[in-house]
Amino acid sequence: MAKRVAVVGAGVSGLASIKCCLEEGLQPTCFERSDDLGGLWRFTEHVEEGRASLYKSVVSNSSKEMSCYSDFPFPEDYPNFVPNDLFLEYLRLYAKQFNLLKCIQFKTKVCSVTKRPDFDVTGQWEVVTLHEGKQNSAIFDAVMVCTGFLTNPHLPLSSFPGINTFKGQYFHSREYKHPDIFKDKRVLVVGLGNSGADIAVEASHLAKKVFLSTTGGSWVISRIFDSGYPWDMVFMTRFQNAFRNFLPTPIVSWLIAKKMNSWFNHSNYGLTPQDKTQVKELVLNDELLGRLITGKVLIKPSIKEVKEKSVIFNNTPKEEPIDVIVFATGYTFAFPFLDESVVKVEDGQASLYKYVFPAHLQKPTLAVIGLIKPLGSMIPTGETQARWVVQVLKGVSILPPPSVMIKEVNERKKNKHSGYGLHYCKALQSDYIVYIDELLTSINAKPNLFSMLLTDPHLVWTIFFGPCSPYQFRLTGTGKWEGARKAIMSQWDRTFKVTKTRTVQESPLLFESLLKWLSFLILLVAVLLIFL
Amino acid sequence: MAKRVAVVGAGVSGLASIKCCLEEGLQPTCFERSDDLGGLWRFTEHVEEGRASLYKSVVSNSSKEMSCYSDFPFPEDYPNFVPNDLFLEYLRLYAKQFNLLKCIQFKTKVCSVTKRPDFDVTGQWEVVTLHEGKQNSAIFDAVMVCTGFLTNPHLPLSSFPGINTFKGQYFHSREYKHPDIFKDKRVLVVGLGNSGADIAVEASHLAKKVFLSTTGGSWVISRIFDSGYPWDMVFMTRFQNAFRNFLPTPIVSWLIAKKMNSWFNHSNYGLTPQDKTQVKELVLNDELLGRLITGKVLIKPSIKEVKEKSVIFNNTPKEEPIDVIVFATGYTFAFPFLDESVVKVEDGQASLYKYVFPAHLQKPTLAVIGLIKPLGSMIPTGETQARWVVQVLKGVSILPPPSVMIKEVNERKKNKHSGYGLHYCKALQSDYIVYIDELLTSINAKPNLFSMLLTDPHLVWTIFFGPCSPYQFRLTGTGKWEGARKAIMSQWDRTFKVTKTRTVQESPLLFESLLKWLSFLILLVAVLLIFL
Repeated sequence: MAKRVAVVGAGVSGLASIKCCLEEGLQPTCFERSDDLGGLWRFTEHVEEGRASLYKSVVSNSSKEMSCYSDFPFPEDYPNFVPNDLFLEYLRLYAKQFNLLKCIQFKTKVCSVTKRPDFDVTGQWEVVTLHEGKQNSAIFDAVMVCTGFLTNPHLPLSSFPGINTFKGQYFHSREYKHPDIFKDKRVLVVGLGNSGADIAVEASHLAKKVFLSTTGGSWVISRIFDSGYPWDMVFMTRFQNAFRNFLPTPIVSWLIAKKMNSWFNHSNYGLTPQDKTQVKELVLNDELLGRLITGKVLIKPSIKEVKEKSVIFNNTPKEEPIDVIVFATGYTFAFPFLDESVVKVEDGQASLYKYVFPAHLQKPTLAVIGLIKPLGSMIPTGETQARWVVQVLKGVSILPPPSVMIKEVNERKKNKHSGYGLHYCKALQSDYIVYIDELLTSINAKPNLFSMLLTDPHLVWTIFFGPCSPYQFRLTGTGKWEGARKAIMSQWDRTFKVTKTRTVQESPLLFESLLKWLSFLILLVAVLLIFL
Repeated sequence: MAKRVAVVGAGVSGLASIKCCLEEGLQPTCFERSDDLGGLWRFTEHVEEGRASLYKSVVSNSSKEMSCYSDFPFPEDYPNFVPNDLFLEYLRLYAKQFNLLKCIQFKTKVCSVTKRPDFDVTGQWEVVTLHEGKQNSAIFDAVMVCTGFLTNPHLPLSSFPGINTFKGQYFHSREYKHPDIFKDKRVLVVGLGNSGADIAVEASHLAKKVFLSTTGGSWVISRIFDSGYPWDMVFMTRFQNAFRNFLPTPIVSWLIAKKMNSWFNHSNYGLTPQDKTQVKELVLNDELLGRLITGKVLIKPSIKEVKEKSVIFNNTPKEEPIDVIVFATGYTFAFPFLDESVVKVEDGQASLYKYVFPAHLQKPTLAVIGLIKPLGSMIPTGETQARWVVQVLKGVSILPPPSVMIKEVNERKKNKHSGYGLHYCKALQSDYIVYIDELLTSINAKPNLFSMLLTDPHLVWTIFFGPCSPYQFRLTGTGKWEGARKAIMSQWDRTFKVTKTRTVQESPLLFESLLKWLSFLILLVAVLLIFL
């Protein structure tokens, strides 16, 4: 009989998990607490408990060619950076294409996931759910936890002396939906992550004044890099990755700092990361700089004291009148339905082997999908994790002994400081390409560029020097997709098809033509010299 | 008796004209049609006849250090690119500082400016004005026309076949004030100038869909260049100017195209200018690119046909449903109070010697200030024109004979095609530094860098390689300002003072320190080798 798998959550990772189970002959049942799929990508006007909450204007930070499911490119007419409503539409298309809806039980909250008494032998779990007031219990051979990490707001009020006396309004960024609330107000946004930057920018169109307070600073970059290419399609290449991993860390840190400062010198705009080697997250924002140079947003250091109607920052004794404070201070995560003995979350870290398997369980029948913040897109990362997990559940891929796994987890906890230049030190952050390659190797799906070099050099070139797009993960082995090669070779066409909506017959500049003729002549002479 | 000068209009050029007259002992009387100063920079909720009209969000395109009056820097806490409300505030400060208000008659429309019968001898003008329904007539020794060129909308409806059948709303960009009107509408903006780009971006935050149609394309650049410096402080240097004027035009065109494409490749975004050597205006916009990559604004070619509720563009037969069309098709200018025999406007060009004096008048007692679109800021350009004009009016600076002036005008009309790389071919556009230097030479106020090299090399270096900021025009000769040198030497401090609102003790990266040590060692070895 096929193994029964409980999937908790129908967001991007949940959907991928269902699909992987179906493809490998497992029997998935997905429990989704809300009444629809999409997880964090489904915008609602009101915050829902237990589900991530978007503001209306959220746009993806990874480009469409880099953030799709590896065998399901975004529709061709999608913009390169996808607004949340279109993103949700894409998830619906995915669910429809692979017939996933039939496996999802909506409005069903998972109350507890506990080991069965015979767990050591069967590896089975008892899953208790609640649907419309009615509790239900069922036995599953495995559980895939896909609840994400953007549900529990982190609101460290104790770090803001005097916040209790504040007479204005304050809330966590999770509560933010529309900028209207800022009209004619003096707004303070605390925290320079992606939400903080977005909210400050939006507020600045309506507010009287906007301050953005940051203690640690951040690298703020544009969604487009070098000549207008999506940043991740330029930055996330196997070539660059190899280059970064080959060079000594100090040189890589220096090169990356230079790159990050190429749009603008962060120190001139008060944004410099306090510790350049320990940046929490890259902030992708195309508009913040424009708001800074027009004085619509002012960067401030950390807060010294909050008063009744004002705030004092740490660089000056001046009191700034403030009406609204938004704490864009991030999230914590937890697994309320799991016992600590299964997954322990400590100091913002979960003890999971390769971010997926609890290292100490006797049977590897519980996996956490998508509990990772790669410097890349969530979708292909979670999807590859799910592909690996189903192979482990089927017994095709074998995990190392617990001692090895526990060692890996402990080493990761020690804030690794080597190899990859930008040290995403937090436990949730990892080097995208290296990590995915490890998972692909476990399921025998990593493309072997050396052997392909003989049969398909053009493809190898594109894979190595071009963007590390998810289609690469489907070229070979388990889960191979026939369309992968074509998708890779046409990724740039799809990228610019949507913006090249006006073309002109370009008359090359005279000098350009001259340059071309000159190059041609030199080539000709060189060829002649060789043959004569 | 001091000469009486009528100044028409109390905008940026009018204010400068009043000040120049006062300083040189002339008696200015400024007639301002509206009830306040500021000209185009004064935002009102409703369009006023005969005055340029702003939308609420307008921000200056030149940076504060490059666009101030040459002896009156912006207040230190102003942002680098000044929003219109602060800009107006600055003009009020200027008027107050130099006591200009007493010379302005508000709510006074100039009906006609005609030569007196004895004009050939006296050069005098009769100025008829209308104030609260009462006509008045007065004799003036000279007239300075400061009415600008953004008052008369250019709305070439005949170029849009079918526009008469269009059932939606359409209007000229002059009518645009707030983006609310676009909520949930399908919007088409026609024309990729600064207004067109701004309006499309703003509409895209609220509209259902936004198209931006352009026939000729444009270079769209960010307000900040290279590492985050204001674009004009990098681009407008005497060094770069000399470099551009020294190289052959094709190479300059090529270099400039490269520079313009350095942020993003225009052809990938449908923006490429059709003729790179004939660009109408630079579009300064920090947000358009972000709206293009998220699909919120779509670039379209020219319009083939307008239908009842839709538009067909020239690249595809597909009809695009449209609710609102905004024609950001620019302005024409005219002098309704002047007879054609005084200043003739033909084909968008006025026959003015150095954009200022009608070439054929017997007496140079009428001047047009600010009828120019330099690739630089309007304020210092108009101000320098005014400084020159008062010297001419006083008889200190002498104009060449009419034949020479007429020749200059005619040559300019022939769409010059040499020297300065970006050919702002339209009659209103000129090469900023060269033009200003010509005017300064006429009034003996051009700094002589060669002779200054001995006395103040640091200043010369800053003037030549640094931004050509207006303070340079006050270093010497007529109108010298004692604060000029200090203002030049502190221009970068003022630039970043406003954005460096958070500083961190930067720990230099290890590699950076190593590099520095290595350089020091090499230097040491070199010095030793020289002396040994």
